[in-house]
Amino acid sequence: MTINVIGAGTWGITLASLLSKRSDVLVWQRDNSKAKILNQTKTHPNLNRFKIPDNVKHTGTIEELDFNNITVIALPSHSFNSILSKCDLKNGQYLIASKGFNHDSSLLLSETLENLNVDKNNIAVISGPNHAEEIIEGKASASVIASVNNEYAKKLQSLLSSNTFRVYTSDDIVGVQIGGAIKNIIAIASGLCVGLELGDNTQAALVSRGMNEILNLESVYNLNHKTLYGLSGLGDLIATCYSPYSRNRQLGVLLAQGLKLKDAINQIGMISEGINACKFLNDITKKHNVEMPICNEIYKILFEKSDPSKSLENLMTRDLKDEN
Amino acid sequence: MTINVIGAGTWGITLASLLSKRSDVLVWQRDNSKAKILNQTKTHPNLNRFKIPDNVKHTGTIEELDFNNITVIALPSHSFNSILSKCDLKNGQYLIASKGFNHDSSLLLSETLENLNVDKNNIAVISGPNHAEEIIEGKASASVIASVNNEYAKKLQSLLSSNTFRVYTSDDIVGVQIGGAIKNIIAIASGLCVGLELGDNTQAALVSRGMNEILNLESVYNLNHKTLYGLSGLGDLIATCYSPYSRNRQLGVLLAQGLKLKDAINQIGMISEGINACKFLNDITKKHNVEMPICNEIYKILFEKSDPSKSLENLMTRDLKDEN
Repeated sequence: MTINVIGAGTWGITLASLLSKRSDVLVWQRDNSKAKILNQTKTHPNLNRFKIPDNVKHTGTIEELDFNNITVIALPSHSFNSILSKCDLKNGQYLIASKGFNHDSSLLLSETLENLNVDKNNIAVISGPNHAEEIIEGKASASVIASVNNEYAKKLQSLLSSNTFRVYTSDDIVGVQIGGAIKNIIAIASGLCVGLELGDNTQAALVSRGMNEILNLESVYNLNHKTLYGLSGLGDLIATCYSPYSRNRQLGVLLAQGLKLKDAINQIGMISEGINACKFLNDITKKHNVEMPICNEIYKILFEKSDPSKSLENLMTRDLKDEN
Repeated sequence: MTINVIGAGTWGITLASLLSKRSDVLVWQRDNSKAKILNQTKTHPNLNRFKIPDNVKHTGTIEELDFNNITVIALPSHSFNSILSKCDLKNGQYLIASKGFNHDSSLLLSETLENLNVDKNNIAVISGPNHAEEIIEGKASASVIASVNNEYAKKLQSLLSSNTFRVYTSDDIVGVQIGGAIKNIIAIASGLCVGLELGDNTQAALVSRGMNEILNLESVYNLNHKTLYGLSGLGDLIATCYSPYSRNRQLGVLLAQGLKLKDAINQIGMISEGINACKFLNDITKKHNVEMPICNEIYKILFEKSDPSKSLENLMTRDLKDEN
């Protein structure tokens, strides 16, 4: 058996390495010359203390992937649709490790796969407090794999679990994706708190409110609170909001220091998914008339030149009212 | 009008200072000589860049307090009962700023006041992500005041609110106290993660699970999930688990470094409420057969000489199962 991984970022390489204990793995990435270098050096530039296992191979030719096998999708959300729509996916099984919305339709990524003729019983998603840099070092981490097909979720659980990487299963594929997408926006807010030196009280107040405003999406999605307050929701939110590894938090810090969005993106050098998630969420909340004050202020900061300091002050001085 | 504050720790002094904008305040503390020094220097040893307002006075004589007024109780939980049971409280109104359980009965502190003949309509509690050190610097913070008497909660809200200290009201006096007591135990676990260098993924997984195991107390208390996932529950939990200001988190860090409990307490020099909360919670969970795995491991570390590293490993390698 060979398992495919599409996308050779830190998360794709980490999942490939976890899977390599039980299967050969073929990792695809767009740039063939980079695939060749990975085959030669067995070292990823952003995980440079880690040696990629020998049974993980790399290719830049997507035709080399056999889509009758299991395929892990670890693409940034902006290339999810453009790359996968060219492939014949219908006979395969998929694990979505990407986080965010479809850039052409604001659909969830699992819904996008269904539109590409994949049976929903062959779709799963993975999410949790999972900074790749720590998993690759063998530090204990836990994650959730969700699918409407419990048997498939259990199969993936067996393939990925180890003593240090604990996988839980869930049937709530929607809740896991919503938590994974929106937490990146709240993490930008958390980074702004850090950059503006607003203090630990303000940061915790915003993060906990951010957690709760995700539930306002109930009018759009069928949300299970247990999922959103679980590892893939709250757990991932906390990790992303407080860990220096988080690129979304880093983005907030840099914006607070006065950098323009473009310059902050360049300085980070990797994609901060919260930027795109914020854009698509804004379409969704406008269309469905959902109130999400923190995500809305982040939208204004990113796309309408709102001053971060004033936006955060707005959030902290909303009218006094009953908490419930 | 004079408002009483019982207890001259950092939180008592901070609340006294917030109240001083709308009332004279008389702060009681056990040590008369320290009260005299505060009257002279107007400086608290742990908030030494802050000048205590002139209309905040200090006394070591509890008979000087007029218990027909509003009294804020900012005592450590271990002296709550012993000090207050000597006073005639029945005609006053109270705001409990202490966190924890009654050391003689494992009752909630509001229940303790009721047993001291205070009408429940005259009892409120305050809790939130509120490190005193930041509030005193004027950094934006938000808090929750809960009482079964909404009118009294609103009165306290008016007395305490400012542009930088936002107070929300709630009717859930039980939920606010449970969140405030248990988060200190989870913060010890969070500090252990930091001290043992287990990484951001493990820490976030434990904090989010810690949040959710609090809800297992539903079989003992009438808990409103909205309160526990709100500012006074989740918000305070996150602040306490991630802020270096938290003494409970500090305790975890020191225990992870191999210090004995006694030595860690001495080094911190102020009370870590999580130690006592853990002890009383253990009685409660045993009596009512409630499963709280993280609090249980912290109990074993504090009182049964469990090795922190092994305890944390136990928590991260519990059997794989369905998340919901």
